[in-house]
Amino acid sequence: MAFSVDEFLKIGREIKYGKNEMLLLEGQISNKVYFIKKGVVRHFVIEESGDQKTIRLSKENDFFYSSNVSFFLNVPSYINCQALTDLELVYWESDQMKKIGSENIDFLRFENQKLKEFIIEKHKKEVSRITKSASARLEEFNSTSISLFNRIPHHIIASYLDMTPETLSRLRAKLS
Amino acid sequence: MAFSVDEFLKIGREIKYGKNEMLLLEGQISNKVYFIKKGVVRHFVIEESGDQKTIRLSKENDFFYSSNVSFFLNVPSYINCQALTDLELVYWESDQMKKIGSENIDFLRFENQKLKEFIIEKHKKEVSRITKSASARLEEFNSTSISLFNRIPHHIIASYLDMTPETLSRLRAKLS
Repeated sequence: MAFSVDEFLKIGREIKYGKNEMLLLEGQISNKVYFIKKGVVRHFVIEESGDQKTIRLSKENDFFYSSNVSFFLNVPSYINCQALTDLELVYWESDQMKKIGSENIDFLRFENQKLKEFIIEKHKKEVSRITKSASARLEEFNSTSISLFNRIPHHIIASYLDMTPETLSRLRAKLS
Repeated sequence: MAFSVDEFLKIGREIKYGKNEMLLLEGQISNKVYFIKKGVVRHFVIEESGDQKTIRLSKENDFFYSSNVSFFLNVPSYINCQALTDLELVYWESDQMKKIGSENIDFLRFENQKLKEFIIEKHKKEVSRITKSASARLEEFNSTSISLFNRIPHHIIASYLDMTPETLSRLRAKLS
């Protein structure tokens, strides 16, 4: 059976969320993969201090698991997943994904490619955090995602970039 | 064509490295996947301060790319890969991996499973760094890898666990 992203999108179900609604709470089990038609999603964890730390931002045309570890292992999620804007999503459930993967080599290739892209994204983010200055991290973010500054709260972007809101504000003023 | 890990290991080539030898230097292109028959490998990056920061440790029965981003994208590596002990490895080259993946659905399934395991490992590590105390991170490490304390320098374990060597030493004394 041939596989195309368009066909894959057609067999998903559509769902909408309002701004600030939660898609997944820590402790729940993730059994869905989503595609973003419209909107921005964040994944966050709770620090020891009780603060929220944003570890990922997803926007239009991104695929995401509400929690990848929870989805892969069928265990309660460590992370929370929240709509930062009104959302229009397509989703597929875990059983549906397994079924497609069991019968379709082209789907497996597509999944393989998406897993690698996710590893690249996470790895680059990890290495930037360790090796780059706050200023260089902001420039890297701006090169792909500057439009998010008009769409979501800046303190969430600061958290994602591993800096304080004050540092982010100071660096943006300097760059502009 | 059927696929088994045993068959896969048989078509790899064997190679040995001596303790402290480099498998990959920052700036080189990674084109190999390895399996560890014997030994311990570390991946590290250079911080802005010039210090080495260990981001991954691999040991017997682990598969690893010398640098995953470099391997996937065929670009120079950000990271360095080093033998921490004498090593006995099996490796496969990029072209060989692509060929097997293009013709064997069971291999793709195996590769997808390994990519998911890698994502789980990295995600758990990221979440632990943010949400857990140094003491809890050490206990987590001990539950799977305590034997590494007899095999590799402790300052490297401290770096991997995102703490100073002094903190690691103090916490180990407290636990024992």
